[in-house]
Formats: sequence, structure tokens, C-alpha cells
Amino acid sequence: MPRTVDAAERRRQIAEAVWRVIRRDGVPGASVRAVAREAGTSMGSLRHWFATQDELLHFAMTLVVERARARGEAAASAGGPLVARLLRVLEETLPLDDERQAETEVWLALTARALVDPRLAELRDRSAAELHAFCGDVVRVLTEAGEARSGLDLDLEAERLYAVLDGLAVHAVSRPTALPADRARQVLAAHLDSLRDTG
Amino acid sequence: MPRTVDAAERRRQIAEAVWRVIRRDGVPGASVRAVAREAGTSMGSLRHWFATQDELLHFAMTLVVERARARGEAAASAGGPLVARLLRVLEETLPLDDERQAETEVWLALTARALVDPRLAELRDRSAAELHAFCGDVVRVLTEAGEARSGLDLDLEAERLYAVLDGLAVHAVSRPTALPADRARQVLAAHLDSLRDTG
Repeated sequence: MPRTVDAAERRRQIAEAVWRVIRRDGVPGASVRAVAREAGTSMGSLRHWFATQDELLHFAMTLVVERARARGEAAASAGGPLVARLLRVLEETLPLDDERQAETEVWLALTARALVDPRLAELRDRSAAELHAFCGDVVRVLTEAGEARSGLDLDLEAERLYAVLDGLAVHAVSRPTALPADRARQVLAAHLDSLRDTG
Repeated sequence: MPRTVDAAERRRQIAEAVWRVIRRDGVPGASVRAVAREAGTSMGSLRHWFATQDELLHFAMTLVVERARARGEAAASAGGPLVARLLRVLEETLPLDDERQAETEVWLALTARALVDPRLAELRDRSAAELHAFCGDVVRVLTEAGEARSGLDLDLEAERLYAVLDGLAVHAVSRPTALPADRARQVLAAHLDSLRDTG
């Protein structure tokens, strides 16, 4: 690897190696050694990015948040009817394809490990707060657009939508035969519908 | 420990030691060595119950399922109005006190680890199928009692209730400050209400 490769490009290469390993071997198989081998580099040169598997998981989760946010913003600005657009943005957090499946596995591993690792907990809290706030935005936008049922408790509905979203994510990633991608999408759509005037 | 201690009593003692360790040190701290120390026994004599941390997690999750089922059955047969009773049974799966907090941590750890361990996956699938079926029962019982909104899609509502339940469990255990026990209970009650005629 030439010395002139800049930090952003290097980060992208490492990130892709992390991603390939996680998709192939799952989170527990993504050791620092495995990522070094995949990236064709030495353990030593990976130290700048992460030294332990928890730091690797932290790095991977940072990527998940960046990727989900980028896809969400793209879906939000794609145009089309409001409700369909909100649904598409919400779907970006569900494991509906291989890429989002790997992301959800990272999120689930992080959520479990964060129970005993304060550094991971801080990242989990930040990403949870972001998704929770987004659920609040969805309920508020529906209401302001006159699309929501009257008398909705906005805070409670934000919490309930967030629970549906993460519950579906856990189930779609852990029992894909019982809850295939299309079914998860259908349940989410039904939930959004239930918040609407026509629900 | 006298040789006459029977298997059931021995299992109860080991189970309690597992539980004390998990509540004190979290799932990652619950090594076979730590449990042996807590139970005042040798590593060798624990081999009958579990030899590795994954087997220990399997043992702990079996206990979670047994305990939650026993509490659920007690709540179901406690009498009182139907909807309040269903709500109490559903609440038995939420981390609303220290004991259920530890159980939810075990469940979350198992769900994450089961993504790469087929033996844990089999247990996760069984406990998921049980809870999913119970959510189906709740929707069906509400409907048969004439308490449900007309036109409910029973299968879809079972899946949605199950998502709300596990989503709230993940959130209540991982962000207890943002979602305290009382709030999780309130969101679950609101969801059950939304399935009702009066919702």
C-alpha cells in the first residue's frame, strides 16, 4: 500500500475489510487478526483503527450509523408521497437485504456487549437516541401534515414506533424463516397505517 | 455437599449460583469458573451441567424460559378482568424488576450469540416460537371475547404485538433511563388498548 494513501481512503479500505469479514463469519468471527488478513495488512498497522475486538465492534457500529443515516437521508429526499417516503426511511433500519442484515447483526452484538462495556454503551446510547428521535419526527411530521389520527400521544407513539422497529429488526435477523423481509415490511407499514386517519 | 442430594436439588443450587453471578457481573462475567466459585464447588463437578460459557448461557436461558413461563401461568390464572390479566402476563416478559432485568440480559446475549451458534439458535427459536404463539393467543382471546376491534388481521397483529414486546424489552434493558419500567408498561398497555374496541 503506497504511503501517500490518505486517511479517508485507508479508513474506507479497512471498513470494507471489516464488513466482508462480518458478513462472512459473523461478529464473533471478526477478530482483529481476521480483519488484518482480509485487508492484506499487518496487525500492527491496524492498531491505529482498533486494538481489540470491542474496538473493532465500535468501529463497525460507527459505520452502521453512518451508512444507515446516509441511506435514510437519500430515501427522505427521494420525493414521492409523504407516508411512502417515511416508510422507506424507516425500512432503511430493517435487515431487508444482505447489507442491512450484517448491519443489524452488528447492532445486536453491540447492544448485548454494551450491557457490560461503558465505551460501547456510549455509542449504543447515541445511535439509540438518534433512531428514537427519528421515530418522534415521523409521528410529528404525520401529525403536522394532517395525516395522523387525532388525539395521538406523540411521545408515547414515538416510543411505540421505535419498539416496533427494533422488535422487527431483532426478529427479522434472528428468525428470518418465521419473519421474512417482506413480512417485516408489511407489519411496519400496518403500524404506520394504524397511526393514520385512515387506519 | 452430601452424595444423597438429588439431581433436582443440585440443579436448583447451580441455577441459583448462575443467577447470582449474572446479576452481579453480567453475562460476559459469568464464566464456568465464576459459577463454580459462587456455588462453592469444583470446575470438574460443574461439567455435568455445562463445560463452556456457551453451554452455561444455554443453561441460563433454559432457566429464563422456565421462570417466565411459570410467572406467566401464575398471572394468567390469578383471575380478574380479561384485559388486565393479559397485560399482566405480557408484562412478565419485560425487564420491570431486577430479576426480569437479569433474564432479559440473558435473552439478549443469547439472541446475539445464537447468530453464530446453532445449538443456541435452536433454543432461541424455541423460546421465540413460544412467545410468538402467546402473542397470537392474546390477539385471539381478545377477539373471541368480543374485546378486539373488528377486522383485525390476527396473524399480523400477533407479529406486531411480539415486535412491540421484544422492542420494549431491548429498550428497557439497554436504555433504562430513557425508558423506565413504568413507561415500558404504559406503552405496552397503550398498544393492547389500540387493539381493542375502545382503542
